[in-house]
This record gives sequence, C-alpha cells and structure tokens, in this order.
Amino acid sequence: MKRVIYPGSFDPPTNGHLDIIKRASSVFDKVIVSVLQNPGKKPMFSVHERKEMLEMITKEISNVEVDDFDGLLVDYVRTKKANIVIKGLRAISDFENEMQMALTNRKLTPDIETVFMMTNYRYSFLSSSIVKEVVKFDGCIDGMVPEAIHDYILNNRLE
Amino acid sequence: MKRVIYPGSFDPPTNGHLDIIKRASSVFDKVIVSVLQNPGKKPMFSVHERKEMLEMITKEISNVEVDDFDGLLVDYVRTKKANIVIKGLRAISDFENEMQMALTNRKLTPDIETVFMMTNYRYSFLSSSIVKEVVKFDGCIDGMVPEAIHDYILNNRLE
Amino acid sequence: MKRVIYPGSFDPPTNGHLDIIKRASSVFDKVIVSVLQNPGKKPMFSVHERKEMLEMITKEISNVEVDDFDGLLVDYVRTKKANIVIKGLRAISDFENEMQMALTNRKLTPDIETVFMMTNYRYSFLSSSIVKEVVKFDGCIDGMVPEAIHDYILNNRLE
Amino acid sequence: MKRVIYPGSFDPPTNGHLDIIKRASSVFDKVIVSVLQNPGKKPMFSVHERKEMLEMITKEISNVEVDDFDGLLVDYVRTKKANIVIKGLRAISDFENEMQMALTNRKLTPDIETVFMMTNYRYSFLSSSIVKEVVKFDGCIDGMVPEAIHDYILNNRLE
Amino acid sequence: MKRVIYPGSFDPPTNGHLDIIKRASSVFDKVIVSVLQNPGKKPMFSVHERKEMLEMITKEISNVEVDDFDGLLVDYVRTKKANIVIKGLRAISDFENEMQMALTNRKLTPDIETVFMMTNYRYSFLSSSIVKEVVKFDGCIDGMVPEAIHDYILNNRLE
Amino acid sequence: MKRVIYPGSFDPPTNGHLDIIKRASSVFDKVIVSVLQNPGKKPMFSVHERKEMLEMITKEISNVEVDDFDGLLVDYVRTKKANIVIKGLRAISDFENEMQMALTNRKLTPDIETVFMMTNYRYSFLSSSIVKEVVKFDGCIDGMVPEAIHDYILNNRLE
Repeated sequence: MKRVIYPGSFDPPTNGHLDIIKRASSVFDKVIVSVLQNPGKKPMFSVHERKEMLEMITKEISNVEVDDFDGLLVDYVRTKKANIVIKGLRAISDFENEMQMALTNRKLTPDIETVFMMTNYRYSFLSSSIVKEVVKFDGCIDGMVPEAIHDYILNNRLE
Repeated sequence: MKRVIYPGSFDPPTNGHLDIIKRASSVFDKVIVSVLQNPGKKPMFSVHERKEMLEMITKEISNVEVDDFDGLLVDYVRTKKANIVIKGLRAISDFENEMQMALTNRKLTPDIETVFMMTNYRYSFLSSSIVKEVVKFDGCIDGMVPEAIHDYILNNRLE
Repeated sequence: MKRVIYPGSFDPPTNGHLDIIKRASSVFDKVIVSVLQNPGKKPMFSVHERKEMLEMITKEISNVEVDDFDGLLVDYVRTKKANIVIKGLRAISDFENEMQMALTNRKLTPDIETVFMMTNYRYSFLSSSIVKEVVKFDGCIDGMVPEAIHDYILNNRLE
Repeated sequence: MKRVIYPGSFDPPTNGHLDIIKRASSVFDKVIVSVLQNPGKKPMFSVHERKEMLEMITKEISNVEVDDFDGLLVDYVRTKKANIVIKGLRAISDFENEMQMALTNRKLTPDIETVFMMTNYRYSFLSSSIVKEVVKFDGCIDGMVPEAIHDYILNNRLE
Repeated sequence: MKRVIYPGSFDPPTNGHLDIIKRASSVFDKVIVSVLQNPGKKPMFSVHERKEMLEMITKEISNVEVDDFDGLLVDYVRTKKANIVIKGLRAISDFENEMQMALTNRKLTPDIETVFMMTNYRYSFLSSSIVKEVVKFDGCIDGMVPEAIHDYILNNRLE
Repeated sequence: MKRVIYPGSFDPPTNGHLDIIKRASSVFDKVIVSVLQNPGKKPMFSVHERKEMLEMITKEISNVEVDDFDGLLVDYVRTKKANIVIKGLRAISDFENEMQMALTNRKLTPDIETVFMMTNYRYSFLSSSIVKEVVKFDGCIDGMVPEAIHDYILNNRLE
C-alpha cells in the first residue's frame, strides 16, 4: 500500500490545495495531509484551526487523513511509515524551491521520494498568501477557497 | 478616454519608474501614478514625501496625476473610474509576481485589465531597494534616480 | 486615436489569440491583427487561409482589422501609422523571447512601444503548435480554437 | 494496481532515464517505459534498437515493461489501461515544456494524471542530445549511459 | 597578479562555498574570502566565528586569505586593490539576484568586473540556510559542510 | 600565465561579443577567441570570414588571439594548453544552456573550468541571430555590431 504525505502550511487551505489532495488520492492508496507547525512564522490560523478546515474539506474523500508535525519532514515521514512526499507545482519559483527542498530531503533520507503533481490551471495564481491578503481588505474569496470553509475563514481570522 | 493607474511603492521613485511613466503617458490619455500605503512595510520615505517626489519628476508631463491609495488595488481602480493597470517588467522574478497579482486582480474584477510595459534596458537592474541600499552606505545614486529628486532623497532619508 | 498592431503567425489562430484580441480591442481604439508572411517556416495554413480564419473569429468586434505583412515588423508598423505593438504573454519562455524582440524593435525604432497583455489562465498552455500536433493525430481541439473555425481547421489542413 | 507510463524518445537511454525508471518502479506497481515513434525527427537509433537498449538496462527490475507507441500519448495511455504518466524533471526549461504538455494532456483526457519525479542531481546536466553530441566526436560517455549499453551505443550508432 | 574578492555571508560556510574557493584559487593568483558584516540580519554565527571557520577550511590553500567588510562591496574591493569579484552560481534565482547586484556594482564602479563560477552539481541544492534549518532540528549535516568545521558548527550554534 | 578560450559561432561577431572579449582581456593574461566549425548549421559567414571579422575588431587588444576549432571543446582547450573557458551570460535561457554545457565539459575533463562574464546591459538583447534577421530585411545594424565590421557584414553576407 502506497502511503504519501502531503505537507504544507495550509494557512488557510485553498482550492489549489484541495485540487492536489483529490489528484493525489486518486493516484495513491492513502494520503496524509499534514500541517507544519512552524514556530518561526506568525500564521493567520492556529494549527488546530488549519486541521479543522482540512478535515471539513476532505471528509468525503475516504483515503485522506489529516495530521500535523514539527521538526524535519523526513523524520516525520519515517514515523508515519510512508516513503513518498507529494508537492504541488504551479510556477517557476515553486519549482526551484521545491527542487531544493526535495534534494535536501533526498540527501538526508535517500529512500524517501518526492513526487510532484500539477494543480489545475485555474488555481495556478492562487496561494494562501493571496487569500490572506484579499481577506485582510475584505475582498471576495469566492472561487479561491472551498465553499465548506468560506465562512470559517471569515469568522475565525485574526484581526 | 483611456485612464490608467500605475500603482507602486515608489520608495523612492527611480529612473526606471519615470521611464515607465513617460512610456505610459505616450500610449494612454491619462496616467494616475498612485502610491500604495502599505502599513505592513517600514518605508524610507512617507507617503507624503513619495507623492512630493513623484510630483517633482512628472510636473512637465501634462497627462500625469499623482495620488495614493490603501486597500485592494481593484477597489481603488474602480473608484478612479479607470479600468487599466500599468506594470513595468524588468526580469523573470518580476514577471512571475506581476502575473500572479494580475491574475488575482482579474479574478476579483474581470473588467480591469493589466497591461505590461518594458523599462529601458539601462534601468533593468534598478529598483527602489537598490537605491536605498546604495544611499544607506553613502554610495553614488547618479543615473539611478531623476536629477530633480537627487538632493531630496539625500536630505530627507530616515537615518 | 490609438492604433495597435497585434502581429503573429496565427497558424492557426487559437482561443488564446482571440482572448488577447478581445482584451486589446477593449483597451485600444483600433486593433490591426496582422499575419507574418514567414517564408522560412513551412506553415499548416496559407497566409490567405489564416487571414480568412482571423476574419471569421473577429467579424463581430468592430474595431478589429485583419492584415498581413512581411519584412521587419517596425517598418510595417510605421506604414500603418501605428506606434504600439501588442504581444500576449503566457510563460517564462514567451517572456524572454518577447523581451528580446521588443528591445530589438525599440533599438530599431525608439518611438514604437511594445505593450504586453496576459492571456486568460485557461489558455496559458495553448499554442498554435499544440493545436497542430493534436490535429495531426486526430485528437479533439474543442476548447482550443474558436468554434467558428473548428471545421475550417479540420477541412483545410494540409495532409 | 497502479500502472504508469514513462514515455520518451530514449535516443539513446541515459543514466538519467534509468534513474527515473528505478524511482518510478519503487513508487508504482508497474512501469511501462514506452518509446515514442516520432516520424518527424531523425533519430540516431531505430525504435527497435531503443527498445532493445531499454530492455537491457531494465531486465532486472521485475515491474518494468518496455513498449513503443505513436500518435497522441493520451490515446496510448488509455489503450494500456493506465491513467498515470511519469515525467522526469531536471531544469527550468524542462519544467515549462512538461507543464505545457501535461496541461494539454489533461485537457484532452481529464482522468489521466501526470506525475513528475526528480532525477538524481548527478544527472541533472544529462540528456540524450548531450550523449549523441559526445558520441559524434568520439568523446567518453562513461557515467552518462548505463554500462550495459555502453558498447551497444558505440557499435550501433549511425555514421 | 590577479587578486579576486569572494564576498558572502558564510553563515556558516558550506561545501558549496569551499568548492568555489578551490576553483577560484586555481584560476586566480590570490583569493580573498570576505565575510559581509550585515547588521540588518540576525546570523547564527558571529563574524569572528565565520572567519574562524573559513580559516579552518582554507588553511591548506596557500593563495587564500580570509577577511571581513561592511558597507558597499565596491568600496571594499578598491581598498583591497582588487578589481575582480567572484560569485558562485547554482540556480536561476541565484542568477537573477547576482546579475542585478553585479550590474549595480558595475554602475557604481565600472572597472570592477564580476566573474561567475559554477559550483559542483553535488552542491547545487546546498545553501547556508539549508544547513541552519537542518542543524536547528538536529538533522545530519554530513556532506553539507566541510568535515573540519562539522563539530564547530554543532558546538557553537546559537540556541 | 592564465590562458582562456572564448569559444562561439560568431556568425557574425556582435558588440556583445566584443564587450566580453574586452572584459576577459582585462581579467586574464591571454584570450583565445575561437570560432566553432559547426558542419551541422548553415552559417551566414564562412569560418574564414568570421575569423577575419574577429581579427578586425580585436587587432588593438594585444593579448587576444583568433583561432578556430572543430570537435569537442574540451579536446581543443587541452591542445591549446589552456584550462579556462569563458562564456558570456545575458539571459535565463543562456544560463541554463551554458550551465548544461559547462557541466558536461567538467564531466569530460574535470580540470577545465568554465567562467562566466556578464555582458554590458546595453547588449543584453543582442545576438548573432538578431543581427542576421535585421540584415536579411535591410534594417539598420548600427550599434549592434562593431563599426569596423559594419560594411564587411553588409558586403559579404550570403543572399
């Protein structure tokens, strides 16, 4: 059985993230979507809230599980007895960063493989930062985030 | 009449900015150069000072107006009864960021069009950050900023 | 009155081209879509056929005119008493090539300005070459080319 | 069972190709390495020879099969009852081309997913074209191609 | 005699830096590796510690000298009676930043030339930031930094 | 004494090439500018003519020599008892190709180092292909090629 980890900040999850989750769940047996606890960054949503949102949008995809982790990704992947990491690709800048991270992870743990999937072109411009920027100025986030968490985002964001 | 908005931080304006302003003013009927009030960033010059500098360097271009805005660009563009946004392109990294912003703006307001113009190659390396870095270490900014604001920059910069 | 030239091979025109034509026609007073007669390349459609297709897809846009040219673009632009060239941007590789051509044109004729517009994200993968490749192997080109020329393409392509 | 197609020209196969084949065979249940019959290009090795070389280098990987195809990739993928395509990524230019092809394939057949894997950094500079160029001038291809086909390449290349 | 400056943060030095130092020392007569005192950034190691590490890893390369500087690079280069600056290139993002800095430096002081060298592919993913990230989470930095400073890094890092 | 090879097609030499030659001649003791005899490509000027032009534009730079070569660059470099290769960088696409070639050369001959220099920004758009294209349509090549070969190019080009 192929278990894969889809790590990220998901602050908040976007339609682009959900698109990758759905694609990964059709290619692999089990997808663990895992929120990185990054103490260095000041998030808009807590790890608990981000997991709650991920659960809301994936509850109907049977082979998806939501989790969180801290520390090195490769250590976490081993703990979960997985050996594949999924990353979504949108643009060139993504590509270089992800390549660097994947090569670092391969250096640290050669038996963990990073696999890249391509988001739907309609979400190629979308990122959590964009959503946060639009939310901050009371812009409309329809079509940017899954409907199921639309109100959650507007109600729970930090001022 | 085609009114266009040229938004930016202009902290401070550079010869690259002035080059785009001149090109835009020859292509469109009216160019509104508008300083973004970005409370998140700590600028070297106040919004007032940046507008003052923009006025100094554009006072002889009859179809240019200087303004400022906060909030979402698309909301501001509508307020000004414009529907075209001008951005200058220099390098690949510009291109990706500007593309993402333009697609986000198009998503928020489909009838606003972003149009890209290309700066003179002689300013392709130039940015406000470079100017600030050079100023900080008492380097020479001749040829980097319009002569009209050369002294203004050296006298008004924050220590 | 702002007259702009939108030059290209249009072999055949795609939905991406039509998207740029529509955007340009909303920003400028007059758009001249002009087919490059490139004797070096072996096209799938003749210049006459390409102009015919462009006329079919633009006949309801009142400020669009279809034309053709050979030789240097800048000489043609002057002949048409225009001073703005429109190019569509999709990807990084576009960007570098277009930048190089625009800088060359600016060197040859400083008073001609190149202005870049961004295609709808849904056509960001699309090019005439892709369409030809799909046509060659009898794949489905729905959604890739305007409906009005769908049959024309299938019937007139060279074997 | 997850069957994946790894399509390519493989003219000739390189250590970079073999690296991707091994990685794919550890992630998926079955990997079909398939040589594109591209009548437009003049290859150094025939489709038969390329398949022979691929069989020589994969004979000890039990879940790999060698095949060939012509026409549209998506039609071939369906014929093989697979729904995943594997592509190797090395550099930015790869990335843009592969992205365009993958988006085209997704447009043609939405249920086929393209998955990208990253070659070992030691093969990031390597391509079939490089190998052919070096062979042409009697340079040394040690470390560029699998040992098992080293002599095959030198003996069978076209003059 | 050709004296070159190899400037950087070296926080800490990596195998990639050492690779460039060795290559530069084989091409030029004298290489001055110089640590930038950047008061804006919070480093993991002090300037003193970074110089100590650079001395540990270069002590057997006779034409290398370790130094530090603050202010504008071009002013420092003149002080050292050098006129060549060395920079290492790994990826596209490096390339754009380095290009911009080199063009700025050329603008400030036309007689200083920037020369780019290419790191070994095996260090193409490596940066000081990656090393710091791995150190922070007690990951293994073998192969990322020179052996001579391996323990120094683990013992002297700030908590 | 540091002898460097600056290889290229130089079909014809441009102001960008001359710019790199001058910069290299100020950094290294001896610069051998060497025309690649590439039988695969159909040039506008013969190898003899290209050498003649290079000699015309470098005759006043005492440490420059003009030569030609065929076969693998690394074999040629060894023959000339040099161990440094110079390449000019302008844009991203240059960068990737040059990186790939340099890594291939390093693989073939580890003791040959490739060093990259940056052309003057005013020539960043310029290439031999651009010059040929402009010449073909009787456009003006002033400022694109050295004055000394301006007439030579117009008189000797193939029809």
